[in-house]
Amino acid sequence: MYEGAIQDLIDELGRLPGVGPKSAQRIAFHVLSADPADVNRLATTLQRVKEAVRFCAVCFNVAESDRCRVCRDPRRTDEVLCVVEEPKDVVAVERTGEFRGRYHVLGGAINPLEGIGPDQIRVRELLSRLGSGDVRELILATDPNTEGEATATYLALLVKPMGITVTRLASGLPVGGDLEYADEITLGRAFEGRRAV
Amino acid sequence: MYEGAIQDLIDELGRLPGVGPKSAQRIAFHVLSADPADVNRLATTLQRVKEAVRFCAVCFNVAESDRCRVCRDPRRTDEVLCVVEEPKDVVAVERTGEFRGRYHVLGGAINPLEGIGPDQIRVRELLSRLGSGDVRELILATDPNTEGEATATYLALLVKPMGITVTRLASGLPVGGDLEYADEITLGRAFEGRRAV
Repeated sequence: MYEGAIQDLIDELGRLPGVGPKSAQRIAFHVLSADPADVNRLATTLQRVKEAVRFCAVCFNVAESDRCRVCRDPRRTDEVLCVVEEPKDVVAVERTGEFRGRYHVLGGAINPLEGIGPDQIRVRELLSRLGSGDVRELILATDPNTEGEATATYLALLVKPMGITVTRLASGLPVGGDLEYADEITLGRAFEGRRAV
Repeated sequence: MYEGAIQDLIDELGRLPGVGPKSAQRIAFHVLSADPADVNRLATTLQRVKEAVRFCAVCFNVAESDRCRVCRDPRRTDEVLCVVEEPKDVVAVERTGEFRGRYHVLGGAINPLEGIGPDQIRVRELLSRLGSGDVRELILATDPNTEGEATATYLALLVKPMGITVTRLASGLPVGGDLEYADEITLGRAFEGRRAV
């Protein structure tokens, strides 16, 4: 509907996830009236991400060098390894400030309906890391949904015979939540996992 | 929370209107795994918009040359001029396929609370266009809100003495809407503007 570049930009922005036609138009007009330096910075950052960001050769977290920040940190213990699905889960766990071990990013979860089996995620790489013998505990922090649970169950079966303690993040009521509004599965898990006070 | 470029991109995206931290993260990871050619096209389009898109010297619509597509079209009449607030309003009117005249884009609406008076929008430029004598009808298509109504009232007072017919878009029930859910002002306007059938 618009002439030339502005319509091209609306089209390009509309291809991004979660950006509908109205948002794309709003962002395009924002760009049109924004400081050229700001727009330039966004454009070069977009290109820089494709050039600079790689995946850590050890844990497959996002990294700017061969190894990510967590893998480079000498103060962290190699004895505890936390398995997550995606780099954003690393950020979520880091934000708690509770974990001082290392990570392993699978790059997804087992989902037979979409053709994702153990070979499509980084299970082989995980087993080869466990082979070094440093790891005493493997924390399965995949998502608490069907795919995440299936992945955790699969990994537990695979790793337990290696003599490594395998744990799973607790399921239960979210802190600050309302018991009344908890779904029945979550509430059921909270009962199952109840602890003496 | 992330390392280097990916965090920079999340920060830059988060500055765009309507993009919150979660969307910014989602878009950044999409970019990370997207085809480099697609990302490059988005980046260059962003820069091209700043270089190529200008405002039409006649009507102030967005344009890639001195005059916009509407102003360049010899099949359109100069006798009817439609005044809108923003270039996106031109697109909205064009989409109806009902209008064959020209536009004048004010670049905003009168809003004393934000210090926007007639001198901050393109009223002077409108009056100089009307001075040419071609225009027989001026359609005020500013938004049907406080600022848009104030702007329309102001322009009507200014232009009527010039012997030009001044009209305002009809207010009423949106087509496909539900009478029950119409707000009282819209429903009141629909009563006021009722027509014989």
